[in-house]
Amino acid sequence: MAHDVQAVEWTGQGLRLIDQTVLPHRLEHLDVRDVDTLVAAIQNLTVRGAPALGVAGAFGVAIAIRQAEREDWDDATRDAAIERIRDARPTAVNLAAGVDRVLPHVPKGLDAVVAEAQALLDEDVRGNRAIGRHGADWILARTPDRPLRILTHCNAGALATAGWGTALGVVRELHARARIEVVYADETRPLLQGSRLTAWELEQSGIPYLIQADGAAPATILRGLVDAAVVGADRIAANGDTANKVGTVSVALACAEAGIPFVVAAPWSTVDLNTASGGDIPIEERAPEEILSWNGTRAAPDGARAFNPAFDVTPAKLVSALVTETGVLEVSSGATPQHGASR
Amino acid sequence: MAHDVQAVEWTGQGLRLIDQTVLPHRLEHLDVRDVDTLVAAIQNLTVRGAPALGVAGAFGVAIAIRQAEREDWDDATRDAAIERIRDARPTAVNLAAGVDRVLPHVPKGLDAVVAEAQALLDEDVRGNRAIGRHGADWILARTPDRPLRILTHCNAGALATAGWGTALGVVRELHARARIEVVYADETRPLLQGSRLTAWELEQSGIPYLIQADGAAPATILRGLVDAAVVGADRIAANGDTANKVGTVSVALACAEAGIPFVVAAPWSTVDLNTASGGDIPIEERAPEEILSWNGTRAAPDGARAFNPAFDVTPAKLVSALVTETGVLEVSSGATPQHGASR
Repeated sequence: MAHDVQAVEWTGQGLRLIDQTVLPHRLEHLDVRDVDTLVAAIQNLTVRGAPALGVAGAFGVAIAIRQAEREDWDDATRDAAIERIRDARPTAVNLAAGVDRVLPHVPKGLDAVVAEAQALLDEDVRGNRAIGRHGADWILARTPDRPLRILTHCNAGALATAGWGTALGVVRELHARARIEVVYADETRPLLQGSRLTAWELEQSGIPYLIQADGAAPATILRGLVDAAVVGADRIAANGDTANKVGTVSVALACAEAGIPFVVAAPWSTVDLNTASGGDIPIEERAPEEILSWNGTRAAPDGARAFNPAFDVTPAKLVSALVTETGVLEVSSGATPQHGASR
Repeated sequence: MAHDVQAVEWTGQGLRLIDQTVLPHRLEHLDVRDVDTLVAAIQNLTVRGAPALGVAGAFGVAIAIRQAEREDWDDATRDAAIERIRDARPTAVNLAAGVDRVLPHVPKGLDAVVAEAQALLDEDVRGNRAIGRHGADWILARTPDRPLRILTHCNAGALATAGWGTALGVVRELHARARIEVVYADETRPLLQGSRLTAWELEQSGIPYLIQADGAAPATILRGLVDAAVVGADRIAANGDTANKVGTVSVALACAEAGIPFVVAAPWSTVDLNTASGGDIPIEERAPEEILSWNGTRAAPDGARAFNPAFDVTPAKLVSALVTETGVLEVSSGATPQHGASR
């Protein structure tokens, strides 16, 4: 069962990650015991997904403590290493938040840090289950009384979290209630997290799905083939503007045009009340080669350049619902996080 | 110079096509002298682009006549072969229109058919030049007085036409007037006509460009990085609804949201007054493998299925301007083709 997939796990010696770059063809793990390896694993997307990055960041502090002991680092070296983990990717607030959560426990030593990171992991799984229930309830109250056609973009599943998933947690819950007809999974260029990871999770769980090009999603929605879209988030601003994988805003625009719900499912830790609006969210730009080549073969002419933002911002007015573990905020109706009732 | 690119050419013996499946890495030609080869070339996108398909269809009738003489076909066999060319792809109206245009000349023999097909080709090039001028004039009157950032989707260039291009014809004209800063070229999944063909044409012509994932286009527009979008069309309904490569409607939705022009550039022959609205346009669905694999490597899990519509429909209300060789219709303001002033 895919909800037993453990993307991030503490082994006692270090962090064990599912290598998400080689899925769906191979299920391989990477054992991480030093900071350089962890930073590389975060940057090359061996581990990805905002909540999973939060857990990886928290355990990353434990890795830095172990490495500091092993290699006799002074505190400043250790703290600089922790800072490198914290800053390995800029957009998801969860990575820095995961690091920050365990930092106060550093003076108490390794065990305390590991315990706090494990608490974060356990909370994430419990939170995802709650997100699934809240999201399913909200969607079922607003859609036809039959199995639903749900569209999702990128991967916000067990692989992107400590387990179960956020957007796919809602899908799993709907499936458990026998209310899924099909999931449209956007392939998610350039790195194909939809084709590779979401499809793999859905396949594992026996949930029917169709993969489509990202460019197909708006038309699929406008043609009436979709009942609701559910996506994850990498950072949610105080006003409800939501950063998620590039391409998400086209789904939101189409949902608004079609009059169907556009639902963001994310743990409350993804909300950054210190970020006023989407314009303040840093958008990571990744290597042009991700666009210009695929699987080692160049698609574009020699000399071509590419623009490769990894995320986009969906304006709050297009977010029908923000589903967190504490409840649902109807953002486009004015229930923004900064005014939210959910905490 | 890319405007000397001849995607479709009559050699006297048959049709010479640029093989668009192997660009940008190799410039190869396919000499077509029988109907089976032509139908396959149309279906596998050796030749593609609505206007180029029209010219290929017209010359295809000449190929059928030559093959009928060579192989001693009766008229019914020849006419069935012509019908197969006509129906090789369903969405672009130009293919059938190109065939239909030369059909009345069939009784007059091969030379008359070739002459009519050549007239269509020559008109297409002249028409594209006019489209370029009208489109550039219209855009420059509605954008800031500086070099522009233009976004395009798929390939509506010299390769998609008899030469020069429709959407890229507008870009070429703007470039000739020193009014292009950069062209954002959507890569255009699944077959990467943007990365491969548009980029190749722009590279040949020395026009600055950036390739981006299709999913990035709406955010690029919403972030204020684009002054206008210009795309081609495969069929335009009487009410102005426009079918073009899948992903186009997300560009249109974003342009409307950002308040910038969304321009469709196409020969008048792309307008099908017999098609009342977009809902009546047949949308070709292509093989799932185009989505599930790339360059021979499977991206998706075994057992995955895909939804692969090749086109989408942009509602007339999102089309700021339809630029044809005869002028500009401001479709979203009510100047639809059926009420159009341009003919």
